[in-house]
Amino acid sequence: MPLLDEDRLFPADERTRGLARALYNTIRDLPIVSPHGHTDPRWYAENKPFPDPAQLFVTPDHYIFRMLCSQGLRLEDFGVPDADGVAAETDGRTIWRRFAENYYLFRGAPTRLWLDYSFEKLFGLDVRLSADTADLYYDRIAECLGRDEYRPRALFERFNIEVIATTESPLDDLKWHKAIRESGWNGRVITAYRPDPVIDPDFAGFAANLRRFGELTGCDTESWSGYIEAHRSRRAFFREFGATSTDHGHPTAATADLSQAEAEKLFALVSKGQGGAEERELFRAQMLTEMAKMSVEDGMVMQIHPGSFRNHSATMFGKFGRDKGFDIPMRTEYVSALKPMLDKVGLEPNLSVILFTLDETVYSRELAPLAGVYPSLKLGPAWWFHDSAEGMRRFREMATETAGFYNTVGFNDDTRAFCSIPARHDVARRVDSAFLAHLVTTGRLKEDEAYDLAQELTYRLVKKAYKL
Amino acid sequence: MPLLDEDRLFPADERTRGLARALYNTIRDLPIVSPHGHTDPRWYAENKPFPDPAQLFVTPDHYIFRMLCSQGLRLEDFGVPDADGVAAETDGRTIWRRFAENYYLFRGAPTRLWLDYSFEKLFGLDVRLSADTADLYYDRIAECLGRDEYRPRALFERFNIEVIATTESPLDDLKWHKAIRESGWNGRVITAYRPDPVIDPDFAGFAANLRRFGELTGCDTESWSGYIEAHRSRRAFFREFGATSTDHGHPTAATADLSQAEAEKLFALVSKGQGGAEERELFRAQMLTEMAKMSVEDGMVMQIHPGSFRNHSATMFGKFGRDKGFDIPMRTEYVSALKPMLDKVGLEPNLSVILFTLDETVYSRELAPLAGVYPSLKLGPAWWFHDSAEGMRRFREMATETAGFYNTVGFNDDTRAFCSIPARHDVARRVDSAFLAHLVTTGRLKEDEAYDLAQELTYRLVKKAYKL
Amino acid sequence: MPLLDEDRLFPADERTRGLARALYNTIRDLPIVSPHGHTDPRWYAENKPFPDPAQLFVTPDHYIFRMLCSQGLRLEDFGVPDADGVAAETDGRTIWRRFAENYYLFRGAPTRLWLDYSFEKLFGLDVRLSADTADLYYDRIAECLGRDEYRPRALFERFNIEVIATTESPLDDLKWHKAIRESGWNGRVITAYRPDPVIDPDFAGFAANLRRFGELTGCDTESWSGYIEAHRSRRAFFREFGATSTDHGHPTAATADLSQAEAEKLFALVSKGQGGAEERELFRAQMLTEMAKMSVEDGMVMQIHPGSFRNHSATMFGKFGRDKGFDIPMRTEYVSALKPMLDKVGLEPNLSVILFTLDETVYSRELAPLAGVYPSLKLGPAWWFHDSAEGMRRFREMATETAGFYNTVGFNDDTRAFCSIPARHDVARRVDSAFLAHLVTTGRLKEDEAYDLAQELTYRLVKKAYKL
Repeated sequence: MPLLDEDRLFPADERTRGLARALYNTIRDLPIVSPHGHTDPRWYAENKPFPDPAQLFVTPDHYIFRMLCSQGLRLEDFGVPDADGVAAETDGRTIWRRFAENYYLFRGAPTRLWLDYSFEKLFGLDVRLSADTADLYYDRIAECLGRDEYRPRALFERFNIEVIATTESPLDDLKWHKAIRESGWNGRVITAYRPDPVIDPDFAGFAANLRRFGELTGCDTESWSGYIEAHRSRRAFFREFGATSTDHGHPTAATADLSQAEAEKLFALVSKGQGGAEERELFRAQMLTEMAKMSVEDGMVMQIHPGSFRNHSATMFGKFGRDKGFDIPMRTEYVSALKPMLDKVGLEPNLSVILFTLDETVYSRELAPLAGVYPSLKLGPAWWFHDSAEGMRRFREMATETAGFYNTVGFNDDTRAFCSIPARHDVARRVDSAFLAHLVTTGRLKEDEAYDLAQELTYRLVKKAYKL
Repeated sequence: MPLLDEDRLFPADERTRGLARALYNTIRDLPIVSPHGHTDPRWYAENKPFPDPAQLFVTPDHYIFRMLCSQGLRLEDFGVPDADGVAAETDGRTIWRRFAENYYLFRGAPTRLWLDYSFEKLFGLDVRLSADTADLYYDRIAECLGRDEYRPRALFERFNIEVIATTESPLDDLKWHKAIRESGWNGRVITAYRPDPVIDPDFAGFAANLRRFGELTGCDTESWSGYIEAHRSRRAFFREFGATSTDHGHPTAATADLSQAEAEKLFALVSKGQGGAEERELFRAQMLTEMAKMSVEDGMVMQIHPGSFRNHSATMFGKFGRDKGFDIPMRTEYVSALKPMLDKVGLEPNLSVILFTLDETVYSRELAPLAGVYPSLKLGPAWWFHDSAEGMRRFREMATETAGFYNTVGFNDDTRAFCSIPARHDVARRVDSAFLAHLVTTGRLKEDEAYDLAQELTYRLVKKAYKL
Repeated sequence: MPLLDEDRLFPADERTRGLARALYNTIRDLPIVSPHGHTDPRWYAENKPFPDPAQLFVTPDHYIFRMLCSQGLRLEDFGVPDADGVAAETDGRTIWRRFAENYYLFRGAPTRLWLDYSFEKLFGLDVRLSADTADLYYDRIAECLGRDEYRPRALFERFNIEVIATTESPLDDLKWHKAIRESGWNGRVITAYRPDPVIDPDFAGFAANLRRFGELTGCDTESWSGYIEAHRSRRAFFREFGATSTDHGHPTAATADLSQAEAEKLFALVSKGQGGAEERELFRAQMLTEMAKMSVEDGMVMQIHPGSFRNHSATMFGKFGRDKGFDIPMRTEYVSALKPMLDKVGLEPNLSVILFTLDETVYSRELAPLAGVYPSLKLGPAWWFHDSAEGMRRFREMATETAGFYNTVGFNDDTRAFCSIPARHDVARRVDSAFLAHLVTTGRLKEDEAYDLAQELTYRLVKKAYKL
């Protein structure tokens, strides 16, 4: 019995289901365009085999260990390394068995769909993962990972990835991207400019980061003008490695439009670690506008990903560091927050800003109305906790009537879990097919338009929006 | 092939669809009661032909040009006049062709449904609007508009409008309403009292407005008591022209209950352009309570439409003025905001306040609980950005369980686009039929009750709530 | 014709409906576990007949008279006693007739489903309640209530209640619980510790309550340490009467983690009625953390029910007192609010905190992400205004993907309306069956898992979460 239902995520009623299936069949095999994500460029550069099943599926994936943690299980027991990089449990099979015993916890979660997809499509498994089948799974996956056709580049090609973007700090030397270029492999892996480490005064090591930023660029990052010039220079360097976008993960969507003199003064303060929370927030706000102004100059697409309360548990942060599942969404405001930036450059024809949110209440109230009128604004897809069947459905239902389809930008997998990429795109394609089919059966769209839009949502809009 | 699906907006499953269709058939031909909207009374007074297709459908409709603007098109190219009233493009056919080329942008938006309804029902068109059919459309519509049966009064009758309210400022002399009265035509067009220009200190020309308000009413609008008396007098004047309601479009839902002395002092301040943002907000807040007190006296129904950030883009406001699609919803709070007014008059049997929102999160959290207990409060229908199939569905799903049906007031088309009136009421009737049918097939309502409620939601509740 | 549709609340499409029905059939007869509610322990202790139909169904139920009030009807006319306990109308039949005439107001409200369930299942009625059938209903119900099999204990057994919790103040002597114990009846009725009267400085009679708290426990409740000790002692006393949980109904979810010295100082202030609103809020915040720390010690499960603006109408509160339908939900924040408590004890293996909300926007944004990672946090079911078919559906749709099923705790009826208990559990079982069936037909869950989860959601999770 297969793990996957062939009609998964299609509407239950036969009329709509049939059309959803037909729409999906025209897009299921389109290439994957992945303009935003967190895979490791080193994989593609080195093309070494992935290590054991636990390290492929469990240990690095915060979607998985946050759920395990919520049920009282210990991260240590799943090989999650502590802040010093030391893992308490290193035996892959032991970790895998613990995971398998608890796999039922993921019932109803998107993770379950993604994993089952990989298990079936990639590793040919057709029994459900559980304590009983843990070893069967482990052996099969381990055996596959040893084969050449499971190395990163082979999987990249098997996944039919036309282009994938990774995300790097301005302090990154992009050596793995360089290595990919020089290897002669023709997979298209590009970088994206994520300057939080040198923009966010609350980022760990901010002062040191600024110094390093100066060294890398040869700019005087102790002065405002040198600092700005360093960004300009580093963005150009990133573009050499294919970057078409920048990405900004601030706590809020605040923007500002200070005078030159005010900005200089503020930079002088925060770059020295002076000033309070308000000044640090104002600096981030000003820098979003600065980045937007540079995007007008250099054409890089700007992505804004606000609203995450990072590292909510002080204890867990101390013990395990960042990205351990303790980032929690917050209420996020956009209408006032974005106004300074929009008043400055919001009508510039060469600006494209893609907005994301972890606060679904803003889809219909703020984001769709904003993107539905400002030429520079587009809506990113349902993000992170909302990158799921219900989350995507809510996004379409709440955003489409005001923003339409053409102010959206297709799908982002946004993942560091390589095997989940085709699974995630498959979910998006199915949910979009279901949504379009529903519009047709309820008389809001004609069939030929639905087929056309299926292509747009899967392939054409993302290429256009991200200039790929 | 018709533009419209006969079963549009009905649920997909056959059981519910059949019942929705049967319910709809009992209400589709009921007269239109339109208690809140923005059509121009001059149309009905003069009964001149509507100008060309572009000026009928494109140029005045911010739902349309905001979407075009969001895709980088210029308002100038669609004949939208600038702040001085000058339109860069005046050729109707040119504008229409540009619109037709971009009509695909409205896929999934309610505008599309409204327009297709007009195109098919009013102008007999049965091919989709596109670049290819632009001239066919233009010629057909232009030809029709030249005929007597497409003049405003004829359309009014064809639309089966029993009564329609327009919205006027207290500074309006209601001359067009007077002209309608005197014309002998028996179409029922009434006004509504929208005092924002003389209540909101942030309204353009507030000081001059107050002076004019004094001239029109013969009251001393430099004193608090004279100002209040001017409202009382002007409300009476509006009632002579059929007004049964007032309407208030403040940024927030704040109300206040100041003492006489405090109110006098506050008025003295804001009427002279003194005081800050806080004082101006407090004045608006106090005036909502004053208006409510007058409604207790004179029986006028009060409508509160808060939560719009008007003219979000400073540049566009400077260039094109108000109502150009750059009004954006904001988070809006009602529970604390309305308390001062409710404590003052919320239990008065003669008070009826209809609440609207652009913030859908308050339907289930604030508005339904408030309207579900206060005898003076009723819920207005899904408004503006949410006046759509999904928006109406969410309103019913989130409000009905707590507020019931009898604390709602039927549908408002709230439009300045004359031809969209029957289309919008048709959408509301279909969505309500679908919702009622769904309650029946899921065992929450009996069929006879659904038929009764269909009449209530379409015709009886609105007449009762607005005292029409 | 029966009042109830056998397939009520199941999805309309036949495929999903059939599975929902099959799932429901495996859980419909499971015992009721009711871990949180407000029934009166005196009923079970005395086992006297319930008084007349109006006093059983109308007079004590704020769901009912709030809707009547919203339509301009007077609480006095329905026998609701004033603040001095005097009821203007005391004739049961008169009250019942008024209620019956207005029963149509409840169309679409959950109250209607609950009442029809009782009318049909408990009293064998098969015509709809209306003015015409008011006397038939009254006579039938009154006749039944006179019979032994309609006394509280008989109904308890008929309802198949395995265990029910009531909610008492620390100032309660639990004499009715004592009487139940001593009666030899084997119905399991337990108490729960609801310390708001001695924790919330805004609670009526707070100072007197503290004194009484000291008398009851023999602790010095004028000192911080004595006050804390009094809680510890009283919690132990409540545990003697079966309590496994505490319950906290603060206005917000704020928590704090003050030093010993700060807490002492704050207590000294608020216990004397000094300090302002900020200090009172801080005291409540600190006490949530104190209660959590005691839960770590004694294992009691903590329930947090924030976000209600109590007694919104000053007039109605003055006239009729608390719990008269004028409690209104407010926007509620959890992510920052809970952090102090979570940093203190959030990772303790012996802590279990169940979170509730009246603000549905936090399901997907805050609560599911928090409960989906913190081992101490679980999600309570849809609460109060949201304890309805649509409310429960939204809860599952918005919480499940991030929190899964195993961080939820089954259903709470949370009622003081005894006859509604089986009706409310029936609604929950049906909505959960529908949700699970939908997951199966859309390929997100296998059938055997859905059957297993139906048991979990109905019976196993609640027993585990509440340690019953």
